[in-house]
Formats: sequence, structure tokens, C-alpha cells
Amino acid sequence: MAEKTVKIGLVGFGTVGCGVAKLITEDAGSIEARTGLRLQLACVVDIDTETPRPVKLPDGILTDDINKLLDDNTIHIGVELVGGTDAAKQIQLKLLAAGKDVVTANKALLAEHGNELYKAARESGRCIAFEASCAGGVPIVSGLRTGLSANKITAMYGIVNGTCNYILSSMTGRNEDFSQALAQAQHKGYAEADPTLDITGGDSAHKLAILASIAFGSEIALDDIFVEGIESVSKDDIRYGGEMGYVLKLLAIGQRDTDNRISLRVHPSFIARDNALAGVDGSFNAVSVFGSAVGQVMYYGRGAGMMPTASAVVADIIDVALGNSATTFRHLHLRPRSQTAPLIEKIDNLISRFYIRLMVKDQPGVFAQIGRILAENAISISGIIQHEGRGPDNTVPVVIATHPTRQSKVTAALESLDKLDTICSKPVCIRIVDIPEDKD
Amino acid sequence: MAEKTVKIGLVGFGTVGCGVAKLITEDAGSIEARTGLRLQLACVVDIDTETPRPVKLPDGILTDDINKLLDDNTIHIGVELVGGTDAAKQIQLKLLAAGKDVVTANKALLAEHGNELYKAARESGRCIAFEASCAGGVPIVSGLRTGLSANKITAMYGIVNGTCNYILSSMTGRNEDFSQALAQAQHKGYAEADPTLDITGGDSAHKLAILASIAFGSEIALDDIFVEGIESVSKDDIRYGGEMGYVLKLLAIGQRDTDNRISLRVHPSFIARDNALAGVDGSFNAVSVFGSAVGQVMYYGRGAGMMPTASAVVADIIDVALGNSATTFRHLHLRPRSQTAPLIEKIDNLISRFYIRLMVKDQPGVFAQIGRILAENAISISGIIQHEGRGPDNTVPVVIATHPTRQSKVTAALESLDKLDTICSKPVCIRIVDIPEDKD
Repeated sequence: MAEKTVKIGLVGFGTVGCGVAKLITEDAGSIEARTGLRLQLACVVDIDTETPRPVKLPDGILTDDINKLLDDNTIHIGVELVGGTDAAKQIQLKLLAAGKDVVTANKALLAEHGNELYKAARESGRCIAFEASCAGGVPIVSGLRTGLSANKITAMYGIVNGTCNYILSSMTGRNEDFSQALAQAQHKGYAEADPTLDITGGDSAHKLAILASIAFGSEIALDDIFVEGIESVSKDDIRYGGEMGYVLKLLAIGQRDTDNRISLRVHPSFIARDNALAGVDGSFNAVSVFGSAVGQVMYYGRGAGMMPTASAVVADIIDVALGNSATTFRHLHLRPRSQTAPLIEKIDNLISRFYIRLMVKDQPGVFAQIGRILAENAISISGIIQHEGRGPDNTVPVVIATHPTRQSKVTAALESLDKLDTICSKPVCIRIVDIPEDKD
Repeated sequence: MAEKTVKIGLVGFGTVGCGVAKLITEDAGSIEARTGLRLQLACVVDIDTETPRPVKLPDGILTDDINKLLDDNTIHIGVELVGGTDAAKQIQLKLLAAGKDVVTANKALLAEHGNELYKAARESGRCIAFEASCAGGVPIVSGLRTGLSANKITAMYGIVNGTCNYILSSMTGRNEDFSQALAQAQHKGYAEADPTLDITGGDSAHKLAILASIAFGSEIALDDIFVEGIESVSKDDIRYGGEMGYVLKLLAIGQRDTDNRISLRVHPSFIARDNALAGVDGSFNAVSVFGSAVGQVMYYGRGAGMMPTASAVVADIIDVALGNSATTFRHLHLRPRSQTAPLIEKIDNLISRFYIRLMVKDQPGVFAQIGRILAENAISISGIIQHEGRGPDNTVPVVIATHPTRQSKVTAALESLDKLDTICSKPVCIRIVDIPEDKD
């Protein structure tokens, strides 16, 4: 017999909503056996009540009127799966005002308005649970908040966008162009018809904002994050980087230095082939976290999809129903932005290694010019590849890997290089990220 | 200002005990900033109060009298880090009887007497938290209980013993003999002076018993687990397996079939080189879990060591202090053994693929004999390697990989093969484990 029946209202009956409804209605018995909680889907709200869905709801619970959910005082948990920021924000605020705890997978909303929503939740004595907002089925939010609570987090490196990882994996493994790989991802359902938010890195930035605010205990704004997408990545650079021992991934990176300065960035990153993240292929997600006591921990799993995301939503529902989410939420100490904003490190100050590809005229003196510009900017070369043979317009690709150097120096060097007559197209520059290896 | 001060008593001031004391005393400020909890080490009990340790305790709290801890009603959390089963069990029972919640890293004790201790905890209204008992810094216990609570777990595959993984990694990467690799592991502190419990697979079985009881919701006894260690693994087999595309790992495997039959085993396992677990090297641990909704999730990190294990112990202390552990512990529904014991699958019924190495006389007719015996046992061959050249005593190694077949058939075939005059030493048999790949 159930120790407790938990009535749930769901707003948004799309893909993830259907997954959540499916889990709650079809697996209620086994969830009850494991947790003692009888989950009961009491109300499902969507503007579209007609389109058939791949799940059978109990009779009479589907409605387009959110007030039916808000006014039902026997429903203590509201799940917002509408997506987007405007309507979803109003829905969450209404759920909180109606005395319901909120479970959500909405990363865009939390990244943009999380602090306002968390404040509203605190003021109404409720909580917001959002495991599903970051990396779908990968339990990274609870990992950071609970599993690593004894640690000061020094860095995290995440592959948190399945669309980009699928595209880059295809470009790497099958030598496809970006456009081919994107089309294939769309065909297979791993990319949206409008993939902009994914391929520009915006979605990864949303997730990084949420994860970094937990990991570093600071309110993070999207503006704090430097973002570069994968739209202009070419398969040639993936191949040349591969020759140097690197694999290209879109990484979301959060680092805190010993002065508590926080650096946050999303960009295409060459990482060593033998790093664990290099083996994360296709639509999978993974996050490597470095803690002061635990060293390196990695979480790996499906970052999206109906059932993996629903798994995280229902885990949150269970956690809320047990009362644990409320405790964790109360103890999520975020320092106010006023105190932490000056501690965000600017991208210009980033120290990194860089991969630079120049398409140069195949004539004497070019290397001397390049060498002079790099030297003037105090950039030291760690490796060069120039294959024999010619590219289009009598140009050849020269690929340079640098030793660690400051971003601003590289930016300046690239500007000078771009002005040379002997360099025939805009220089390509990709950061090489040396993820610290916690090894024996 | 701290919302709550939490006084902690520690029993056992060895390596992990020192790590816990270090974290609590040195990181109290940052833990308070993150959680609102002020952790205070109030009493440390050890029979040895003289040997200098690498941590400075507050004056007067180190004692050899456990009653000082038991009688202090301001201490609500007792941490048992004594290890072993007899004394530790009495200590935990005393802590519970004195009204304290228990945090422990003691896998042997929980694997052997967990059910008795959990019962005692429930009866006294307390909880036992044991994240640190399995895979050190890898947050797999909370992962199974919280992150994957919406899932029916169908299988888990774990590298949960750092000593064995270190030894097998050395044998693989540096072509070392078992004894060389063991000596090196001892030299580097990754193996105990008496490594028996690790290399026989016993320690992995302890962890599997704990993890499987959570994953499958059943009381698991150590006897339910089939265990084979790595003591007799030879580098030749690692090499031949490598030629076939496999990497050798000591895996702890728990599987539940559609009839709810549970199969539990620890043994050397050849796994595909491109599986994520194959890349887990040295003393690291990792567990791949398959959930009905989430698909594959993997957790990776340091499985042992002072600070990684302390990280898990202190995470549990925080969870207990917040009250979450008590809730989770109450809702850990284990079906009584009487109901689940018949559902444990015997190893004889295991369907697996097998790697078999035979040292055969290099003469005509041998292959025919081997082929006949395999055929009589309905064992189908998926691959054979026989290199040219001779081994000792005019023998050559013949390496066979089989298609999936029943363990009992292979056992019978090995007995028949062993009786052949043309086979000169005991056949070597290692299971090939096809970990399901959750791929795009």
C-alpha cells in the first residue's frame, strides 16, 4: 500500500510531457514499489487538446484551462514543460502563487530568469526542481548539489548539447560537411527544424549558466558567458586537428581560479584524443567536474529525448514529493550578483592554447611573415603542419598549434595576419583545451 | 551566519578518517557558505591516540573511549570508519542505540550484515548513509537512489575495485605479469600489503551486493554473487584478447531479466575496446547503469583514496544533517529475502560469450578433437587465433571466441578438453561481456 499519494499537474503536453505522462501512468506500480509514493497524474494542460499523443491519459484530465490545475488544492506539484521564456515564466509564477512546487526542464527560462523565479519560490515557501533542465538524463544537477557537496568545484567541462555533439561526431567520423551533418541530424530527429539555438552555442550557454551558478555558488547571467557556436566549423580543421591528436567538441567550460575569478565559455574546443570526453559520441552528453577533494568525476548519459528527459523530470517529482527538493532548494546558497559580478573573468584574459589555420600563398617569405607577427605578439609555436600539394588559388593550408598564450595576443595576431597579402582567407582559430587529467 | 551547527563524532582515525577530519576542520567555512551548515568535529575515537596524523584536530577531542562520543547528546551524527565487520558492527549498533545517525564507508560490513543494521536503524528511528562504501568518490549510491528513481534498473556493469583495475591496466598497457603489476600497485599504495580481498574479487562482490540491493530493491546476500578474481590472469590472454578487439576488466555485473530474475557476478571480463568502460584506467572506478527510461548512464571517478572517499563521507554527513538521508533511507524499499531469493539466477544458466585458450600439441588432428568436443556441447565458434611458431614443450596456443552459449555447456566442454592428451595445460576460460551499447 502506498504511504502517500502524490497528485501531479502537468503543463505542456509535447514530447517530454508525453514521456512524463507515460512514466507516471504506466510505471506507477514499480515507482510505488521503489519509493512508497503513488504518483497520480491529475491534470494535463495544453492549448492543443486534440492532436493524438503516444500515451493514454486517464479520462477527463486533459484541458486547455490552466485554472483547473491552479484551483485544485489537492495537486501539490506543477510540472512546467511548455518551453520558451515568456508564457513559461508566467505559468511557473502562477503555480508558485497557487502554492505548488514546480518541476521544470526549461533551461532557457532558468538561465534568463532563474534568480527571479527562485526568489518567488522562496517567498512563497515552495521549491523549483530542475534536474531535467541540464543534460537530460544525466543527473548532473543533483551530482553537483548533493554528491559533491563537500567539494569546492574548481572546474567543469561539459558536452551538454546533443545536437552539436551529433553533428561534430558525424563530421569527425564520416568526414561530412557541417551542412550534410546538420541535415542528417535533422532527419534523425537530433536537431530541430530551426537549429539556431543549438548550433550557435546558446543552448549550451543556458545550461552552463545553471550548472555554474550551482557549482560556484554565484548568480550567473548569460552575459557572463563567452559563446561561439559550431556553424563555421569545417571538416578540414577537424581533420588537421585530428592529425595533431585532437578531437573537436563543443564544450561548456566553467573554471574558478585560486582568486575566485570565474571564467565561463562555450566554444568549439580541440581536446586530447585520450581524454574521456573525446569518446563521448553522437547525441550523448557528459560533464567532467573537478572537485577539491574528489578529484575528477564524470557523468555520462543521454542529454535529450522523450524518455531520458522524462526520467529526470520524474526523479525530481519523487524528490519533491519526499520533501528532499525543498531542503536542497532552501540550502542552495547563491551569492548575490552584486558581489560576484566583478569576479567574472573576461575572455580577453583567457590563457589557452590555440589552433590556427592560415590559407597562404605558396611562395617564399610567407613563413617569415607569419613568424614575425606571432613573435611580435609573444606567441610561441608548439606544432606546425604544412602538407605538400596545393589548395585552391595556389594556396596551401598552414596549421599552427600554439603554447599557452593570452587570448588578446592571439586576437591581435589574427588581425595582423588577416591583413597580409599572402594570406588569402580569414584565419581560422580554435581553442585547444587542455583538460587537466586526474591520473595515477 | 550558520543556519545550523552540526556536531560530528568520528570512530576510526586512519586514512579516510584523517581525510574526513581534514575536510571538516579545514573546509568548514566553504561548506557553510555552500550549505548553511556549520560542521563541527566534536569527538574522534581511535585505539591509537599517539601516532601523529596529517591533520590537526581541535584540542581534547581525540580519545580512545567511545563512550565519550556515545554519551554526548549534542552529537547527532556518528561516522564509523573502523573497517572490518565485528567491532564495526558493534560500534554502529551502539551509535544507533545512542540515537545517532550513522555515516559509514564500510562495504564489507554492509554487504554481510546490512539488513540487520538497516533494521536496527529503522527501529531506532535513525538512518545509515553509505555513499562512501561503494566506489569512493563516485556518487553511485545517490545516483541509483535519487537520480534514477524513476527507472527500473535492468543492468549495471561496474569497475568498482581500483586495485584490480590498476593491476589489469598495468598488465595491458605495460605488458607486465600479474606479480609485477601487483608489486607495483603495492609500491604505489594502490594495493594493500595483503591484497587478497581485492584480487579475489571479494571487495567487488561487497560493493555489488550493496549496489544491487538498491538497484533491484531486493536484499542481496554475498552468496548470491558468483565471484572469480584476477589472480590467475595472464598477460598472454590480455594480449590475445586485445588482438580480438577486447580489453580485460574485472567487472561487477548485476542484471535483471524480464522475468525479474537477477544475475549477479564478479569476474574478469573481456569487453569491446570502444566501450566507455574499456577506457577507465588505473585506480579509477566507473559504473554503467541501464535504466528503463534513461537508457545508459555512466558514473566515473576515483574509487578510493583519502580525499575522494572523505568527499563521499562528508557529502553523506551534509545529507544527513539536512534531513534528506533520513527520508531516502525510510523510502529504500527492500523486498524481504524470502521473496527474492528464488529469483537469483545460477551462474550455470548464464548465457555469455567465452574466450577459451588451449595450449595444444602442434600435431595433426588436434583441431578436429577440439571441434568435436565443442560441437558435442553445441558451442559455436565466432573466432579463432592460432599464430605460427611454438610455445614451450612443442605446444601452441589456440584461442577461441564463442558465440553466446550457456555456462554449463562451456564448463562441460572444458572438462572434456582438459582430458585430451593433446591439450597440455588447463584450458583458460574468460567470459566476453557484451555490454549493450545505447547508441544513436
